[in-house]
Amino acid sequence: MAGASNLSFILNKPNDVSFEERPLPQLKSPHDVLVAVNYTGICGSDVHYWLHGAIGHFVVKDPMVLGHESAGTVVEVGSAVKTLKKGDRIALEPGYPCRRCGDCLSGKYNLCHEMVFAATPPYDGTLTGFWVAPFDFCYKLPDNVSLQEGALIEPLAVAVHIVKQARVQPGQSVVVMGAGPVGLLCAAVAASFGATKVVSVDIVQSKLDFARSFAATHTYLSQRVSAEENARNLIREADLGAGADVVIDASGAEPSIQTSLHVVRMGGTYVQGGMGKADINFPIMALCLKEVTARGSFRYGSGDYKLAIELVASGKVDVKKLINGVVAFKDAEEAFKKVKEGQVIKILIAGPNEKVESGLDTSVDEAKLKEAAASGASGGCC
Amino acid sequence: MAGASNLSFILNKPNDVSFEERPLPQLKSPHDVLVAVNYTGICGSDVHYWLHGAIGHFVVKDPMVLGHESAGTVVEVGSAVKTLKKGDRIALEPGYPCRRCGDCLSGKYNLCHEMVFAATPPYDGTLTGFWVAPFDFCYKLPDNVSLQEGALIEPLAVAVHIVKQARVQPGQSVVVMGAGPVGLLCAAVAASFGATKVVSVDIVQSKLDFARSFAATHTYLSQRVSAEENARNLIREADLGAGADVVIDASGAEPSIQTSLHVVRMGGTYVQGGMGKADINFPIMALCLKEVTARGSFRYGSGDYKLAIELVASGKVDVKKLINGVVAFKDAEEAFKKVKEGQVIKILIAGPNEKVESGLDTSVDEAKLKEAAASGASGGCC
Amino acid sequence: MAGASNLSFILNKPNDVSFEERPLPQLKSPHDVLVAVNYTGICGSDVHYWLHGAIGHFVVKDPMVLGHESAGTVVEVGSAVKTLKKGDRIALEPGYPCRRCGDCLSGKYNLCHEMVFAATPPYDGTLTGFWVAPFDFCYKLPDNVSLQEGALIEPLAVAVHIVKQARVQPGQSVVVMGAGPVGLLCAAVAASFGATKVVSVDIVQSKLDFARSFAATHTYLSQRVSAEENARNLIREADLGAGADVVIDASGAEPSIQTSLHVVRMGGTYVQGGMGKADINFPIMALCLKEVTARGSFRYGSGDYKLAIELVASGKVDVKKLINGVVAFKDAEEAFKKVKEGQVIKILIAGPNEKVESGLDTSVDEAKLKEAAASGASGGCC
Amino acid sequence: MAGASNLSFILNKPNDVSFEERPLPQLKSPHDVLVAVNYTGICGSDVHYWLHGAIGHFVVKDPMVLGHESAGTVVEVGSAVKTLKKGDRIALEPGYPCRRCGDCLSGKYNLCHEMVFAATPPYDGTLTGFWVAPFDFCYKLPDNVSLQEGALIEPLAVAVHIVKQARVQPGQSVVVMGAGPVGLLCAAVAASFGATKVVSVDIVQSKLDFARSFAATHTYLSQRVSAEENARNLIREADLGAGADVVIDASGAEPSIQTSLHVVRMGGTYVQGGMGKADINFPIMALCLKEVTARGSFRYGSGDYKLAIELVASGKVDVKKLINGVVAFKDAEEAFKKVKEGQVIKILIAGPNEKVESGLDTSVDEAKLKEAAASGASGGCC
Repeated sequence: MAGASNLSFILNKPNDVSFEERPLPQLKSPHDVLVAVNYTGICGSDVHYWLHGAIGHFVVKDPMVLGHESAGTVVEVGSAVKTLKKGDRIALEPGYPCRRCGDCLSGKYNLCHEMVFAATPPYDGTLTGFWVAPFDFCYKLPDNVSLQEGALIEPLAVAVHIVKQARVQPGQSVVVMGAGPVGLLCAAVAASFGATKVVSVDIVQSKLDFARSFAATHTYLSQRVSAEENARNLIREADLGAGADVVIDASGAEPSIQTSLHVVRMGGTYVQGGMGKADINFPIMALCLKEVTARGSFRYGSGDYKLAIELVASGKVDVKKLINGVVAFKDAEEAFKKVKEGQVIKILIAGPNEKVESGLDTSVDEAKLKEAAASGASGGCC
Repeated sequence: MAGASNLSFILNKPNDVSFEERPLPQLKSPHDVLVAVNYTGICGSDVHYWLHGAIGHFVVKDPMVLGHESAGTVVEVGSAVKTLKKGDRIALEPGYPCRRCGDCLSGKYNLCHEMVFAATPPYDGTLTGFWVAPFDFCYKLPDNVSLQEGALIEPLAVAVHIVKQARVQPGQSVVVMGAGPVGLLCAAVAASFGATKVVSVDIVQSKLDFARSFAATHTYLSQRVSAEENARNLIREADLGAGADVVIDASGAEPSIQTSLHVVRMGGTYVQGGMGKADINFPIMALCLKEVTARGSFRYGSGDYKLAIELVASGKVDVKKLINGVVAFKDAEEAFKKVKEGQVIKILIAGPNEKVESGLDTSVDEAKLKEAAASGASGGCC
Repeated sequence: MAGASNLSFILNKPNDVSFEERPLPQLKSPHDVLVAVNYTGICGSDVHYWLHGAIGHFVVKDPMVLGHESAGTVVEVGSAVKTLKKGDRIALEPGYPCRRCGDCLSGKYNLCHEMVFAATPPYDGTLTGFWVAPFDFCYKLPDNVSLQEGALIEPLAVAVHIVKQARVQPGQSVVVMGAGPVGLLCAAVAASFGATKVVSVDIVQSKLDFARSFAATHTYLSQRVSAEENARNLIREADLGAGADVVIDASGAEPSIQTSLHVVRMGGTYVQGGMGKADINFPIMALCLKEVTARGSFRYGSGDYKLAIELVASGKVDVKKLINGVVAFKDAEEAFKKVKEGQVIKILIAGPNEKVESGLDTSVDEAKLKEAAASGASGGCC
Repeated sequence: MAGASNLSFILNKPNDVSFEERPLPQLKSPHDVLVAVNYTGICGSDVHYWLHGAIGHFVVKDPMVLGHESAGTVVEVGSAVKTLKKGDRIALEPGYPCRRCGDCLSGKYNLCHEMVFAATPPYDGTLTGFWVAPFDFCYKLPDNVSLQEGALIEPLAVAVHIVKQARVQPGQSVVVMGAGPVGLLCAAVAASFGATKVVSVDIVQSKLDFARSFAATHTYLSQRVSAEENARNLIREADLGAGADVVIDASGAEPSIQTSLHVVRMGGTYVQGGMGKADINFPIMALCLKEVTARGSFRYGSGDYKLAIELVASGKVDVKKLINGVVAFKDAEEAFKKVKEGQVIKILIAGPNEKVESGLDTSVDEAKLKEAAASGASGGCC
């Protein structure tokens, strides 16, 4: 690694970013590995921190490296690591739990109160050259999964976790509110779980057109009517009978959540996967009388990364379709701007040691990029 | 049954009730039994129909017999009935599903769209002399369970269903919002499920005192502060650590529901068991970030009556403590008034063929009656 | 139906069958429908009754119509039937529970002690002209599912139930012991549930070749070694790491069951789907130390037929590949002989009013028939 | 700890034990605590190693300290430990998983392949003066739970895990085969989970008498008849209707296991909690046709110790009744002999720094000791 750069992309305060060469990180435990970061996607939360400096209780007080959707290559392994070796290409799960609290010991480590999560203040993120991680949070990519696809494993794991929270069963009908990156991925994961009807819902027709080409069997353009009327129309248009077995809200928007509760059938399940306002007007009587099961979904946990990788490796979810392009590390801020402006579904930032043409590398798929740009697809749903 | 009365207590329109001698009902199927009604409790929904003539979509258009919390004695059995015989004392489950829809066949008959439910318009209720029911919805009472206790099996089954929806596990902490009849019974059922901490919450101290003497291990007097502050205080006073494993709202009140979501721990469960407003301001981000499982609870279903009876027979839930007295059938309207005024926890109306002193029979427990009257306990939580 | 035949294929005693024109059956309830039977498959249990006159406690004492894997066409509906009409093509679920016992009311009607099941003594089966059934046990076939495929819905529902009992989750590895009709269908259903590795195991290589072309991702030719060694070899050849997540035995053979317990991983699931000997030598310590969950699977229940039809309609399971041919009703005994001799995977018998060329109609797929015949595939695994 | 002894009780080879003063152990991580061992119970597995030097694959090759059922007092805490302090009295969970494998991360750490478990070769046990453990495997005892009771938390956790594996629900009937320590504790735990009928089964009447005084609502003296006849008689005598909801085998004996499968009802659950022969004759058809769920149970996992302590603290399980006496450390071998001879239910060995009268301290409860001695109760069931 002589000469390798550990250049990092740092948020100093809202709308103020800079690049800084940081010292190479060291292994802290014999179970750690050192990873060279190859590609990193931009999440809605990254953009939100960049613009506002905070999400809920999490406030950026000191300069913080951004980014947490990364794939990389192992360059060093600790003495106790048996499952990885130098050169292995991996998807990086960017949050490390305490392993000792009741939540960790019972298999719900995503709920750990002592979680150290990349690019959630005060912890630095992965838009950097090198990253140290426990070996069990680094997942080897199969030969047929590229490092660029590897950077999409993180949002796909978010979708896997949401769909698991919804307990989607084969043969069920699933409605997904929102056709941003996570909504699109939820639709694809639900289909891979055996859902026979997958309805994508959004307020932008071009996003629905993309959803239809990606994973949805049906789409519905949400209307500016009451939640109950919107729900009735959706049920009728998508031929959902007495309502959907499962409704996933990946939008966080109040009208979407209200509609969700009216779309779900008696005894059905609704999962809140996107975050918006802290408090909203909510149809509680519908939840009660229909015996709906509602669940929140937060990040990802045991088995989610593993399954996400298998879904890509087996061809069940084609994450490449969501990638609009790759930019060089020095163009990171430009990439953030494109995401903010809704010009892309998913854009990747190459690591500082990665050779990429400056500017948006549209060699990936020019036509797809334009299609997505036209759709105004935004990534802001998780 | 020569000379037996089928006098019925009928709601004509809001605040307008009358008594009418109706024809003796006949068995409609070889699986039916004819039951002489001995005692009937008054539910909050009965009072609501009496006062307002409607609950949600259910509107009383034609005169309707009130009542659905009943115990009775078998007087005739159909030719296919093997499990019951004349003279058997039974608790009456008062809703009959279609047995053929997907919900019925999958064991969730309480969600059946064709449910025929007593005293839910347009169907008559059980404040009458005789009642016909399918044999499998009549549950024989053990020798050590009285017919008056039998009339409490219905609200106890409501509580059993709520606690089942909450998946209460041994060793858990359970907070119950509301100390009306259903809230009290939820607390007792939660304890019987092995909950080691059961916290009753209400806005009336005397109701909490009764709850403490009934089933709660802790009580909390709800405060007029923000839901988050109320939750913090509750958690601290009841020593709930990182929050309650389970929160049951048996109040239907908006502030209670909001507090519920802030009291429940990461990964915990909240069940909505009481009904109030259709739409409320709801802390959706708390549900999402804490991965709360929220469930509605509607009436009762498979196994709930059976378990409710076992809880009484085994002494785990002492429903007698909730009965403030018994009135003669002709005093039914007076009993409704007492419930409306919050003077009782649970009052029973004897069947028209039952010999009971006119007026409130306080022989049951004078002291308890006064205590409850003082508390202003109301039954209006389901 | 003037002139329509109700010719029935009757088992008088072991190895003694005959044809008899029986009176047209009548609707017994307003919920019933009358169905003209179009096609009926032959199950291993049919053959077993034909040869031995009994299965366990079930003994054929009086002449009994054989057959229970049928599809038909509605010719008359009762007055209360709203979901079906004359002319509808349906798959027939051939067992009718009491709808009133604890098992029925809790959604496990396949466990009902009063089940009336076709071709299980003393109840007649469906190798007849017309059949009366409750409407909710008749499942309308979508336009893209043929009546011949409809006759395969019954064994597919058996497989659906087995795979549900195994709680197969997306991404799991599933080993299926036995590559007869039910084993083949279990493999296909497991794949449709998202299993990423599906290993078919048998003692006949040609059956494994067919399994590979049907649904299995891997196959393993079972060896005549100890169960533990067989398991080790299977795990190594199929690259199952620490063992399979799920093992389904669809063979009923003692060595297969023993191997199953050694193939399943710590904490994994094993389901017994085929029936053989009542008592076998069983590795109980493996079950205990590995905390295996073992489950039996018996027939099918709530939702299984519905899902089976969706799997065929959506193209996820291609049951046509299992059909080797169709014979005329008068050739029913010949068809039974072919199944006994293991010359076919699945053979259909046309209803007595169906126009089919006498003899085996090989128009279906000559090549496939030969392939299966060569494989010696047998249907005897459920 | 100047002058404190770290005397250890060591198994050299079968039937050859000795005492050895070992060096005081040191904290290996900032998360560790050092514990002075106060009391240790004797498990059937300890006795088995003592007599045979091996259990299954686990073979004692080098001298090994025995014992793993211990309570102790914290004498030193690592720098990262926040939940414990010097002087805290604790129950010791004696197995430490890797925290990094799929089983650990998914909350099933008892299945971890790298588990380090006390007194399972090659790892030393807790019959020693001082013990180092991760803080999260040390559970603080409430004030009302004594250190002697604390030593019983380990076998109680075994029973908690078994009953959890059985998913015992309130109102269910539970049959427990075997009335040794674990069987007795399973009965008590099942009752605390809300089982309304708990049937203890054994071949020794005096053990059943004790079971009845401890937790069982019914007992059954197993008969030397066929398993099916034994099951029929048990079902009839205990009035179990169509069979028991749950059957737990805590005996490991082949006839008990066979009977278990015939006693459990359609759709019921059977858990194998005791270990005997590796392979037995097993009624597989009963498992299949009745759709029984069978599960193994191995040690204990997430939440089991916590619940075990709460059951003792709340008075639901009175483990003191099982303790027949306490011996001084130097009399450890004598205590092993008493357990082998079946003269006690549970005997405790005081730590080497504990002041206890030499010989069996019968001050605990003379009468109870004699009762148990007469019963020939043996501890050999887990």
